[in-house]
Amino acid sequence: MTAAQQQDIGKFVVIEGLEGAGKSSAVALVKALLTSHTGHEPVCTREPGGTPLAERIRDLVKIADPQDPLCDEAECLLIYAARAQLIANVIKPALQRGEWVLGDRHNLSSLAYQGGGRGLMPLVNTLSQACLQGFKPDLTLYLDIEPSLGLTRAANRGALDRIEQQALAFFERARETYLQLASQDSSILVIDASQSLEAVHHDIKQALAARLVGC
Amino acid sequence: MTAAQQQDIGKFVVIEGLEGAGKSSAVALVKALLTSHTGHEPVCTREPGGTPLAERIRDLVKIADPQDPLCDEAECLLIYAARAQLIANVIKPALQRGEWVLGDRHNLSSLAYQGGGRGLMPLVNTLSQACLQGFKPDLTLYLDIEPSLGLTRAANRGALDRIEQQALAFFERARETYLQLASQDSSILVIDASQSLEAVHHDIKQALAARLVGC
Repeated sequence: MTAAQQQDIGKFVVIEGLEGAGKSSAVALVKALLTSHTGHEPVCTREPGGTPLAERIRDLVKIADPQDPLCDEAECLLIYAARAQLIANVIKPALQRGEWVLGDRHNLSSLAYQGGGRGLMPLVNTLSQACLQGFKPDLTLYLDIEPSLGLTRAANRGALDRIEQQALAFFERARETYLQLASQDSSILVIDASQSLEAVHHDIKQALAARLVGC
Repeated sequence: MTAAQQQDIGKFVVIEGLEGAGKSSAVALVKALLTSHTGHEPVCTREPGGTPLAERIRDLVKIADPQDPLCDEAECLLIYAARAQLIANVIKPALQRGEWVLGDRHNLSSLAYQGGGRGLMPLVNTLSQACLQGFKPDLTLYLDIEPSLGLTRAANRGALDRIEQQALAFFERARETYLQLASQDSSILVIDASQSLEAVHHDIKQALAARLVGC
């Protein structure tokens, strides 16, 4: 495929979900499927992070400092700073080159975690509109799982970070927000992540195949 | 003075100005005057920074990385993240304890530099309203200086950081914004910082004496 043929066909696909929903293996699967579909590996990102500076911002969000606890508003602003940096320096340039971009989390995480989980939806909506100005993924696969099941899986992986240490009710609110927003936006597909890995991957393949035709 | 008597008398005083305007010596002077006036040293802050986490954010704003240049929107968001953290963990607790707070820069810097200088006033106004929700200094002393004179002074101090390396026109726009906002807000006093140090300090003393009576 020549550069000219590739122009304007890059799309932005995002994997979303609570801790322990299986995002990492879903990202690996979707990466392989997109590579097969387009003939090129997608540009892979994660949020918060994905650029050298955004990764340093990620460190600030993840590390708990009892002497200077991160306030909720600063957490939101840091996450949007990392996102603005990632969009400006990685995602938009890749899409403009005609490449596909595969994101491990994007704006929907902020709406779910900070908006729903922390109860800061007015601030998150304001930041979302002011910083993204309508920019959004072409397709989002939301891996839905009961928070209690997801957190058990996450805990089995190792020590929990500052976000993962939130109370169960925080993740319940985040999940409700994910499901509510998915019900209002046809670009967000819900995958039942409580199934076996094989069944989840089967559903992801089907969803992607159905949507890739129209992409 | 007992803790009970001190209650509710803490005020927030801020020194503002372009690079090389003489903020540092003004801060030292105002600190001494406030200490004399209240019988206690004020809590001194600087922005961006002033808490361990906010100082780490300051580092991200100050350091230029040619491989991952900080985009203007991320710069704004980082500065407001640092400010939210400083207000939540330092400024508001101090004021609630009845202490005075002396700030080396605050929100007016964002309006001048990012709003005026970078042309991002809509985003800065949005962040200002969403993050501060009406919180503002009781008194701001803006040290006004011609950018060319201020930058010459700043350059004589040593190597210029990422912000100080902006073009002269950037600082001209920032100064215009400072002056415009000062003309609309009686809590912002303009001090002519092109004068001799003695004259500047005389004006600061007079301004503070006049306002402290009413504080």
